[in-house]
Amino acid sequence: MSESRLRHLLSVDDLGGRGGIERMLDRTEEFLAVTHREIPKIPALVGKVVVSLFYEDSTRTRLSFETAAKRLSADTMTFSVSTSSVKKGESLLDTVQTIEAMGIDAIVVRHQAAGAPRRVTEWTDAAVINAGDGRHEHPTQALLDAFTLRRHRQGSLDGTRVAIIGDIVHSRVARSNVKMFAALGARVTLVGPPTLMPESLVGWPAEVHHDLDEVLAESDVVYLLRIQQERIAGGRFPSLREYTARWGLNAARAARLKPDVVVMHPGPMNRGVEIASEVADGPYSVILEQVANGVAVRMAVLYLLAGGAEHEEAA
Amino acid sequence: MSESRLRHLLSVDDLGGRGGIERMLDRTEEFLAVTHREIPKIPALVGKVVVSLFYEDSTRTRLSFETAAKRLSADTMTFSVSTSSVKKGESLLDTVQTIEAMGIDAIVVRHQAAGAPRRVTEWTDAAVINAGDGRHEHPTQALLDAFTLRRHRQGSLDGTRVAIIGDIVHSRVARSNVKMFAALGARVTLVGPPTLMPESLVGWPAEVHHDLDEVLAESDVVYLLRIQQERIAGGRFPSLREYTARWGLNAARAARLKPDVVVMHPGPMNRGVEIASEVADGPYSVILEQVANGVAVRMAVLYLLAGGAEHEEAA
Amino acid sequence: MSESRLRHLLSVDDLGGRGGIERMLDRTEEFLAVTHREIPKIPALVGKVVVSLFYEDSTRTRLSFETAAKRLSADTMTFSVSTSSVKKGESLLDTVQTIEAMGIDAIVVRHQAAGAPRRVTEWTDAAVINAGDGRHEHPTQALLDAFTLRRHRQGSLDGTRVAIIGDIVHSRVARSNVKMFAALGARVTLVGPPTLMPESLVGWPAEVHHDLDEVLAESDVVYLLRIQQERIAGGRFPSLREYTARWGLNAARAARLKPDVVVMHPGPMNRGVEIASEVADGPYSVILEQVANGVAVRMAVLYLLAGGAEHEEAA
Repeated sequence: MSESRLRHLLSVDDLGGRGGIERMLDRTEEFLAVTHREIPKIPALVGKVVVSLFYEDSTRTRLSFETAAKRLSADTMTFSVSTSSVKKGESLLDTVQTIEAMGIDAIVVRHQAAGAPRRVTEWTDAAVINAGDGRHEHPTQALLDAFTLRRHRQGSLDGTRVAIIGDIVHSRVARSNVKMFAALGARVTLVGPPTLMPESLVGWPAEVHHDLDEVLAESDVVYLLRIQQERIAGGRFPSLREYTARWGLNAARAARLKPDVVVMHPGPMNRGVEIASEVADGPYSVILEQVANGVAVRMAVLYLLAGGAEHEEAA
Repeated sequence: MSESRLRHLLSVDDLGGRGGIERMLDRTEEFLAVTHREIPKIPALVGKVVVSLFYEDSTRTRLSFETAAKRLSADTMTFSVSTSSVKKGESLLDTVQTIEAMGIDAIVVRHQAAGAPRRVTEWTDAAVINAGDGRHEHPTQALLDAFTLRRHRQGSLDGTRVAIIGDIVHSRVARSNVKMFAALGARVTLVGPPTLMPESLVGWPAEVHHDLDEVLAESDVVYLLRIQQERIAGGRFPSLREYTARWGLNAARAARLKPDVVVMHPGPMNRGVEIASEVADGPYSVILEQVANGVAVRMAVLYLLAGGAEHEEAA
Repeated sequence: MSESRLRHLLSVDDLGGRGGIERMLDRTEEFLAVTHREIPKIPALVGKVVVSLFYEDSTRTRLSFETAAKRLSADTMTFSVSTSSVKKGESLLDTVQTIEAMGIDAIVVRHQAAGAPRRVTEWTDAAVINAGDGRHEHPTQALLDAFTLRRHRQGSLDGTRVAIIGDIVHSRVARSNVKMFAALGARVTLVGPPTLMPESLVGWPAEVHHDLDEVLAESDVVYLLRIQQERIAGGRFPSLREYTARWGLNAARAARLKPDVVVMHPGPMNRGVEIASEVADGPYSVILEQVANGVAVRMAVLYLLAGGAEHEEAA
């Protein structure tokens, strides 16, 4: 058994397989308990500085990481890079080296280019957390989804049937979650238009299906991806109306779901497109639990990576 | 006598009439004293998170709330929504639910639509504070104005003659302040071009006058509203030059004011338009006191709403 | 000997000559030691509020000041003024008075107009720190450069030969650094195209040379300025290619440098223009040390100016 400390979190693969993932989820339970205290703040990261380095807009993910950092008593700073300042600005290399030279302990990176966070690790000793890179990965999203699901599945995803629905090929959430759910023993089915599916399933431990209605009745979990409306012009995409008719989770489809089904969405939702409002706000939905658990997951990740915690095993 | 705790602050009406307003002003005195300490910071809100949710730009109001929150040891985060991200973004409902799911304790909302903060209260258990909604209300502005004025009027506004001057009908500051000053016993006169006055005085406990020069000599308080230059094109507005000539407070007019008059402005000022620089910086002006008191008022409001303080009475 | 307390830092001249500069550098050593502690944070400025008032974009300088302020336990707020809000907005005077009325302790100002920070001092009792004003000065940059250099020159710059290379006349960094290095006993040579040199050397205690290759071999320190690409269109500037050929520090030139030379750059770099990547990342470069020392320098400055520290002597 090899033993290594988690230094960065770039991909679900970094977590060390099922054992490592489960340890992280167990840790998250402890931090979730902290968030329920009357004073939900602990001095774990006093004096540590966490920088959000966001080359893509995402208030939601940034606020979640910043809330997590503040609950750990870290100082936070934001480095939001608009397109214009990228143009006239310095390279990613120089930005990262500059930030690190200031004595920053963790860098949360979102970037439109797959692989950018990995490059960042080559240039810094700070802990690097991938908050979404191109079509590649979004590992804290997968962790919070797994955490949420485990709580709704009596502690285990073994044999759970998960349908992930939408624009799979362009989605880092799908890519991370397929790895995550499969590692935890779930059976994943990808559903959506053929043009939005991966050409090969290498690296995607999942099945593919194109007819949502055939899949729904057997699914324990229905995971809807956000439709990127800017993709529709690209030709690979059906019209929004056709998409909603064939792959949207509306009330009629929801009526045929299993009674203990769990409906998930990473947000932000396009209500009326991939999910109807009555489903988003309905009894099966755990969407707001996902958000709440996201803070606890990010507390666990920041604590382990920026906190100089004891060595963690990875299988 | 009904007793209820103040959960949100959306309107001057929420404060519970004269009794409730006066208790809030008394509280503010205590927090003003805190701001004068050598270390002007108390641990009242440690572990609480206050989010500024601003759909309209206002650095001034946002900094005032954030300073107040930091002086109470709360953590603060900003969610500034530019027009572009609203377009592609999620609904106000989803934004609010997402923020709340992260475990936020208070949401300070500024929005261009009247009533938006009230809708926010339907979607969250966090305390909601209206920092200005469309033409509707801006209750913390009214509180800080009343607080400032009470200090200059020997503790009581009873019988004080207040002139509020400018574009009344479009002004949330006017609407909140008329209610506030009237509730505290002042006599309010609205002054400005007829086209910028409310069509009916229902809900406006005030008189209307169009000739500033007739009103000035009798006023104990002259409250100037900011002229929104973008309104001038609308046709209801005289030219800027005509406005300044007839309703601007210049040095000549200031010379005819009562010796103990108080000149107020909510800021930011258009110097040379609704107020001349020598008046803004002159002996009657309490404009910077308004700003300073604004931090203390917002400390009192945040403390009561986010702090889980003991139950407050409202008449 | 006159004695006065440093209230603002607008120019290298404010530091009180060699004695005052050396005391500030000695102080910086103490704060650098703080940044190397396991918990690099001290409660020196608890309850103080530091506002960054930036009328020009500079994430790098802003983050450095904010990191410094947070390591001193101050609260920080940012007031970034985009061009658009300046247009519709309030004057610098009103912004400063408003910020001060909120009870802010220090204002870090960056402004495109030379002299703007000095005007700010006329309107506020808060400590004002110039973080770059037009072509005028950038005193904390000069302090961090002197601090970095002193450590590499066995504690003294006496007799050190410093070449500063680039667009001298438009550079506030050059202006502050010439004063700084000369005050500490160094001999400064300015190098670059004649059109980019000051017309007179009054106020520039330095020599001028146009041929980089003649200067390099004798230099103990090579300080490269960032080429502002937007200046090239102005006619006073050679083509980028010509500039790089004649005044860029490439590997061939670096090979002829003294073995103990120090290569500096204030960042952000234009790699391949004024400096080649292999030089920027090579053994002579102390560029990242400059960044790291910048946080310690700004801690020292903020501590002295916002901290109500004991009276400091200035010669």
